[in-house]
Amino acid sequence: MKGLQKLFDPKSIAVIGASNEQGSIGLSLMKNLVGSGYKGTVYPVNPNRKNVFGIRCYKSVLTLPEEIDLAIVATHAKIVPIIIKQCIKAKTKSIIVVSSGFGEIGKEGKMLEKEVKKILRGTGVRLLGPNCLGYIRTDKKINASFAIRNALPGKIALISQSGALCSGILDWALKQNVGFKYFISIGAMLDVDFSDLIEFIQKDKKVESIAVYMETIKDAKAFMKAATKFSKKRPIIVAKSGRFDESARAAISHTGSMAGDDEVFDAAFERAGIVRVENIQELVGCSQALAKQPLPKGNRIAIITNAGGPGVMATDAIIQRKCKLAHLSKRAMKALEKEMPMHWSRGNPIDLLGDAGPDRYKKAIEIVLKEKNVDGIVVILSPQAISKPVEVAKAIAEKISGTSKTVLACWFGENFVEKGREILRKMNVPCYRTPESAIRVFSYMNSYRENIKNLYEAPVETELKVKPDKEKINGIIASYLKRGQIVVNEIDSKEILREYGIPINKTFLSKNAKQAVKEAEQIGFPVAMKVVSDEITHKTDIGGVALNIVSKKEVESQFKKIIKNAKRVRGAKIKGVSVQKMIEAGNIELIIGKKNDSVFGAVIIFGTGGIATEIFKDKSIGLPPLNQNLARRMIKNTKVNKLLNSPRIRLKADVSEITGILTRFSHFVVDFPEVEEVDINPIIVSKGKFYAVDARMVLTRHAKKGFEHLAIMPSRKK
Amino acid sequence: MKGLQKLFDPKSIAVIGASNEQGSIGLSLMKNLVGSGYKGTVYPVNPNRKNVFGIRCYKSVLTLPEEIDLAIVATHAKIVPIIIKQCIKAKTKSIIVVSSGFGEIGKEGKMLEKEVKKILRGTGVRLLGPNCLGYIRTDKKINASFAIRNALPGKIALISQSGALCSGILDWALKQNVGFKYFISIGAMLDVDFSDLIEFIQKDKKVESIAVYMETIKDAKAFMKAATKFSKKRPIIVAKSGRFDESARAAISHTGSMAGDDEVFDAAFERAGIVRVENIQELVGCSQALAKQPLPKGNRIAIITNAGGPGVMATDAIIQRKCKLAHLSKRAMKALEKEMPMHWSRGNPIDLLGDAGPDRYKKAIEIVLKEKNVDGIVVILSPQAISKPVEVAKAIAEKISGTSKTVLACWFGENFVEKGREILRKMNVPCYRTPESAIRVFSYMNSYRENIKNLYEAPVETELKVKPDKEKINGIIASYLKRGQIVVNEIDSKEILREYGIPINKTFLSKNAKQAVKEAEQIGFPVAMKVVSDEITHKTDIGGVALNIVSKKEVESQFKKIIKNAKRVRGAKIKGVSVQKMIEAGNIELIIGKKNDSVFGAVIIFGTGGIATEIFKDKSIGLPPLNQNLARRMIKNTKVNKLLNSPRIRLKADVSEITGILTRFSHFVVDFPEVEEVDINPIIVSKGKFYAVDARMVLTRHAKKGFEHLAIMPSRKK
Repeated sequence: MKGLQKLFDPKSIAVIGASNEQGSIGLSLMKNLVGSGYKGTVYPVNPNRKNVFGIRCYKSVLTLPEEIDLAIVATHAKIVPIIIKQCIKAKTKSIIVVSSGFGEIGKEGKMLEKEVKKILRGTGVRLLGPNCLGYIRTDKKINASFAIRNALPGKIALISQSGALCSGILDWALKQNVGFKYFISIGAMLDVDFSDLIEFIQKDKKVESIAVYMETIKDAKAFMKAATKFSKKRPIIVAKSGRFDESARAAISHTGSMAGDDEVFDAAFERAGIVRVENIQELVGCSQALAKQPLPKGNRIAIITNAGGPGVMATDAIIQRKCKLAHLSKRAMKALEKEMPMHWSRGNPIDLLGDAGPDRYKKAIEIVLKEKNVDGIVVILSPQAISKPVEVAKAIAEKISGTSKTVLACWFGENFVEKGREILRKMNVPCYRTPESAIRVFSYMNSYRENIKNLYEAPVETELKVKPDKEKINGIIASYLKRGQIVVNEIDSKEILREYGIPINKTFLSKNAKQAVKEAEQIGFPVAMKVVSDEITHKTDIGGVALNIVSKKEVESQFKKIIKNAKRVRGAKIKGVSVQKMIEAGNIELIIGKKNDSVFGAVIIFGTGGIATEIFKDKSIGLPPLNQNLARRMIKNTKVNKLLNSPRIRLKADVSEITGILTRFSHFVVDFPEVEEVDINPIIVSKGKFYAVDARMVLTRHAKKGFEHLAIMPSRKK
Repeated sequence: MKGLQKLFDPKSIAVIGASNEQGSIGLSLMKNLVGSGYKGTVYPVNPNRKNVFGIRCYKSVLTLPEEIDLAIVATHAKIVPIIIKQCIKAKTKSIIVVSSGFGEIGKEGKMLEKEVKKILRGTGVRLLGPNCLGYIRTDKKINASFAIRNALPGKIALISQSGALCSGILDWALKQNVGFKYFISIGAMLDVDFSDLIEFIQKDKKVESIAVYMETIKDAKAFMKAATKFSKKRPIIVAKSGRFDESARAAISHTGSMAGDDEVFDAAFERAGIVRVENIQELVGCSQALAKQPLPKGNRIAIITNAGGPGVMATDAIIQRKCKLAHLSKRAMKALEKEMPMHWSRGNPIDLLGDAGPDRYKKAIEIVLKEKNVDGIVVILSPQAISKPVEVAKAIAEKISGTSKTVLACWFGENFVEKGREILRKMNVPCYRTPESAIRVFSYMNSYRENIKNLYEAPVETELKVKPDKEKINGIIASYLKRGQIVVNEIDSKEILREYGIPINKTFLSKNAKQAVKEAEQIGFPVAMKVVSDEITHKTDIGGVALNIVSKKEVESQFKKIIKNAKRVRGAKIKGVSVQKMIEAGNIELIIGKKNDSVFGAVIIFGTGGIATEIFKDKSIGLPPLNQNLARRMIKNTKVNKLLNSPRIRLKADVSEITGILTRFSHFVVDFPEVEEVDINPIIVSKGKFYAVDARMVLTRHAKKGFEHLAIMPSRKK
């Protein structure tokens, strides 16, 4: 993030492409810069004009009377490289390119981007954009953008990847009285990217939260590092669009098809402590709340309302968001009983009834603020005949000042309550239109608290207790690559995994029926038999699997049948049939897998395996490296976890055993990045033990070393 | 719904409890009535006043100069019974009681309700309320409410069960320019309930949709009948709060714990063709759209936008809501290519770019309106430097007039675009703040279309092809009730179900090990053995199940083990051990069940059974009676349906067979309402066949006959 100081605190700014033309970006930039109270010098640059916006205009950046800190370039894309060369020659410290016409328009634009990158290389000059709106910094009164609205001063830093959304967000924020310290349109990230900005903002202690509208990330590793560091102290809230990945990619492994791009983002955000919200309103609403209200210490909410309906709506939202209705103490109940009218709700939600005025609200809040079991209060006002939205707002804002509990409000309705909403917002109590919105924001605040806790959790033993023979594994992999094969068969995959202490079910390859019989007898009946062929992925589908084989005779007949079925698969080379002990299904089948995500590199999945894998899609995604805590959290995030812990089925599955398997697998993933995809599926849980009965790996020819280490291990609080 | 005509079109109205006191309900009622332009006569009634609001006041309804159509009672609850008696004596045709202090305050209030009901009985006088705000009818300019806002005229009928929310909703609607023909606060439904109002509104052809805010239903049967009839022609949209049922009730059956109260509401709403929305904003937004825009003919949406970001957000929402991004034809692509600027998106979403003005929007819409593969258009404007929110709004509203496609809009932002939103709304194009809101409303409109289709679908054979021996079933049930037992054991439950053609796995009861061996030999190995005891519900948990038994010797030892384990269960009477053929698990286990819901009576569930039943909660809920279509739809709504149809696992499960089982089960449910709960779990699917390997029933001592017939069969379009 070196060199951003001059970009965001310039003493002098040149606007290259400044213009007097109505509706032009060049004029908007000048108006915003000059009109916002900026204390430095603004130089319009345009070879065709004598003056712009009443200010003397210069022919080129080279003819300016001083070296400047920031040049804003608003010329046609094609001449941007020339302009940048001039800037560098003129010792300009930093550049914003607002012009569009780069990567987003295709090949031609991408060439331009490359050219600009080349020019910048080694100069130390930083560039924001291209294809952005610029930025606004309110404390220095710099509006270096062509946004149609200015920002109110505040403590939020907003970064938007969509320039087109900036004016809309500003318009919104203005209405909600939400202010910003920085409002940055990041554009195409040719140079300055998310990690640069997060690191820069990290140094500004007056910023209380970062809000990001994101479409994608370029340098995931730098982003994870910067975000994890920032999140430990202050929240980053992200609204990311593009949740659904419609592109139908053919995935060889279950893991490949199960860990969708956007779900990997979810996992990465959680790992970095980032709070992900659903949309722009929530981004603004949540950043505001995090900047203005104390963080909740837990998920227990008290509802104070003057109507039953919104109380029920809030309760619905509380349960949906996995928060809790706080339990009121006897003391509180007694105090409320004394102060409230006869027919109050006698519980939480605390219904003050329709005729509640400021006094009744005040008394209820006073009582609830003393409750130890309440982490947050959501105050609701639904306009009724004698409601006083303004007076109640004032009373509440007064009453709660200085409390360490989170207080949010919902004034239901529009014009009748708008003034009350405004008062609350001005007094630092975020106020929403619906009970659901308030509860959702509370739940985001709470999940941020949980995130920090996880980031700081005590480090847990990550040392590998097994000693894998890496030479042996390298040998197996090399032999495959030598033959030009990338799919590692069941038997070799199991051999590799066994080195990392994955409890595989010992499996033998038989070339003919006689050998199969011999192996089966040695293993002991019943056995399972499966075709071994690099080309056959879904063995069950083609009749390549036989289970529960109980006799020599059956082994012989099944061998023939499997080979016969497999031969029908066009182009499949058959290596033989594998024989292994039949594990009595304990009804639980798990999957552990790895895939390489195009943005975040290696990811690990854990979940329900077997036939149900792609039907229930019950899984969680984690980023390596994993320690015991992270592995446990992954397991906890699945539905099958309940089954692993169910007393009903008397599995007595040792969850610490599966945690160990997962962390050891994570070591394997880190050690062998050249294994691109792994499916261990199913792992059968039978009588409390785990058996990996099938496994498969896919190699990459071009191992990307270091591809796997994007996440950062939690560390003890300093 | 008899007698509602006078309630909603009164020639004369008395306000009993009329008052001059500021802030009183009596004054609000007078102000609203007199101030709204009502053409009839308003009589204030109050024994303590000479005049109210400048109008001569009467001592009692008995001293009025004429018989009146409607009395609005706003007195203390305690004297309401006396007032009502007077009204009846004075031949008043209908009554609204706005007073609170009835059922909602507990025992005392419930007594008052009973008293009022008794007084009304047989008089033909209808009563709206108590504990309501009254109603507004805009076409007759009647504001018989004490709401703080009036309603704009419109074509929506709104019914709210929460009085406290009414003013908020009106405030909202006013801001959004949404009008109502009726705006009814239904209150405690002492007499007039949802079905009455729906039937009444059904006769008013000018109403285009009914919007309901609901907390619960009293008479489910009447509601289902009225709603189903109305939905066939015009939409009913419901926002129901109280989604989560926190009350932890001990359920004996899986079905009991799986079909939550609110999920039954979902099933009932779907059956009646009702569109359920999430909250009040959606209720208003969706009713408005359904009243103002044509119904979409499918789920294919074209997005027209001036910015990429909101286009992506809309796409996310489209996929989440199971709609589709419309595929643009070659013709459209060619036409757009000609009209759009060079760097337009070349696909759907159609990104017109940031400098798009009214003309470009118009051209894009013109081209898309001609597309056969587009069912709806969502037009988005994100404010940018040269955006013209008002001009674009006008251009669009003009361009689309007369189209049969659904058109919705989203003007992103606040003050900068508010005027544009208003223009669109006034020109009948619902306009939202976010792309998601617009897409959600579209998806609700589309699901309404699907609902109607289902209501009108061709009737399907519902005749039962098996002839159950009902005498035999009655005998079994009677024998249990005689013994005072309500849990029917596996063997008898299977006997009963077999009569309805449920493919049970023939099961024998053995009293001792010797008998068990004999039975096992007769059945053929392997067999399964389970304890038979009315007191033991979860047999696996206590070690009461043995599977895969392959020898006589094992039968003997397992018999002893099961009995030993069962004896440890305190208070359990052991009848013996059941023996049945072991079915080789084909990896799919299903559950079919029945429970009685407290509101809707009998409900049927279908889903994933076995050990995964309560973990994945993969199920769908249906109301009997079922025909083949309804049963098929239930199956389709589960995840396990994919597995039933999966070619991968080569099950060849005959879905029509399971459809048949489900419809036959529905016949059983209808025939035997005294069976309160049924679990058939699991039904194992093995090699394409179905085997009900376990079953249990719970009887009710007091059979509620007729409890089961709340839903109405679809019928052919008339």
